[in-house]
Amino acid sequence: MNRFQIIVEYDGSDFVGWQRQANGPSVQAALEQAVAGFCGEAVLVEGAGRTDAGVHALAQSAHLDLAKETSADTVMAAVNFHLKPAAVAVVAARQVPNSFHARFSAIRRAYLYRIVNRRAPLALEHGHAWFVPQPLDAAAMHEAAQGLVGQHDFTSFRASECQAKSPVKTLDRLTVTQVDRGPSGSVIEIRARARSFLYHQIRNFAGSLKLVGEGKWTARDLRKALEARDRAAAGPTAPAAGLYLTEVGYPEEAFVETES
Amino acid sequence: MNRFQIIVEYDGSDFVGWQRQANGPSVQAALEQAVAGFCGEAVLVEGAGRTDAGVHALAQSAHLDLAKETSADTVMAAVNFHLKPAAVAVVAARQVPNSFHARFSAIRRAYLYRIVNRRAPLALEHGHAWFVPQPLDAAAMHEAAQGLVGQHDFTSFRASECQAKSPVKTLDRLTVTQVDRGPSGSVIEIRARARSFLYHQIRNFAGSLKLVGEGKWTARDLRKALEARDRAAAGPTAPAAGLYLTEVGYPEEAFVETES
Repeated sequence: MNRFQIIVEYDGSDFVGWQRQANGPSVQAALEQAVAGFCGEAVLVEGAGRTDAGVHALAQSAHLDLAKETSADTVMAAVNFHLKPAAVAVVAARQVPNSFHARFSAIRRAYLYRIVNRRAPLALEHGHAWFVPQPLDAAAMHEAAQGLVGQHDFTSFRASECQAKSPVKTLDRLTVTQVDRGPSGSVIEIRARARSFLYHQIRNFAGSLKLVGEGKWTARDLRKALEARDRAAAGPTAPAAGLYLTEVGYPEEAFVETES
Repeated sequence: MNRFQIIVEYDGSDFVGWQRQANGPSVQAALEQAVAGFCGEAVLVEGAGRTDAGVHALAQSAHLDLAKETSADTVMAAVNFHLKPAAVAVVAARQVPNSFHARFSAIRRAYLYRIVNRRAPLALEHGHAWFVPQPLDAAAMHEAAQGLVGQHDFTSFRASECQAKSPVKTLDRLTVTQVDRGPSGSVIEIRARARSFLYHQIRNFAGSLKLVGEGKWTARDLRKALEARDRAAAGPTAPAAGLYLTEVGYPEEAFVETES
């Protein structure tokens, strides 16, 4: 078997999510069909993160096994050829040891949540950001966000459907920055990094941080929501359209062939 | 009559262009219908630039006259309400003197042409950039572009359908910059500024600058194409999807009520 890691970009708007489902097109199935189109093999494409319907990826990571001997460049070009015109593209590929696992070898995930903050609805970025017309204070959001960094029980920001064994996670980084774009309005970028996240964790962060940005909540209120360990104590879940999986990180060793 | 200037953002992908046409939906008609929906008046929305099918705008400028006495804020909110879910939004509005004309008062237009330069096709930016897989040298493109700045006969970069009286225009600025985005590939941004442009001028610049970026043309070749004053001497027309109208500029006086 030849294992390949692929880095995948996709527009989640028209997919039911990453994972194969009976009720509509998934990114995973689109990739599996493209691989079958290229080499006739029925493969499983295993992703590092199961993004929801409407969630995008700049750099999802996945792996797949081929019986065929081929180069990573060929895998990338051929899968892209067969993906057309799907809103999915393989932006990089490399051959990896059979011990590499896109999901289980990963030690870091990074996400971006984009808010467009202006009075006018979105024309060019519809489906690619959360439209928030109320003026938001990004500096206050950033300051409050620091109260979530570190190891905590994140039950307050965890969807009820979450299948993780424990609600305790270590959030490495949570930043909020603002980019001014003149008449196009400002973009508020929330960036989060951790080994792994709970289901809906970042969208729930975004929903609560918006309350801080509007001045409805203080940093103390956000901290109290965390400490309540109760989903009802935190803000609403922000829309999927604003969320992007931006990076999946691995230790160097994950790419090294081990003696066996 | 009450005249209003509106700044308009749109995604040109599903429009036949700015201008009202029999063969499909236009941005102009979408705006005129929204104004009618808001106040029942059949108005003409006059734009500063007639963008083609597939061309986008961050800040098109237009004006319209209403019999109704109302505020610019109301115009913006009401037109946006009636535009939904069109891929058009009014991002700013102001009341202007009746002497203001979106097209004839304008003294500056600025455009952005976006190229995504990477091997993988576009998943997230399909329809919003020109996908060029051949590696491009942005610094060489920028250097060559400087040979086009200034007053010239731009016949070589003018579409045969162009209705301008003269092919002589003064190009104030033409820059080429590159933004590296890691696995998402680099974006090459061509920015052009002039009082006005010929039909397809920027798309024709982009098509020729790509030849320079690929190393097929030198700066001297580009300059020779300009001097040939022959459309056949220059490169092909780049796709509409990469082009964005980013600014229309006016002199201060255009916004000042004159005694009459």
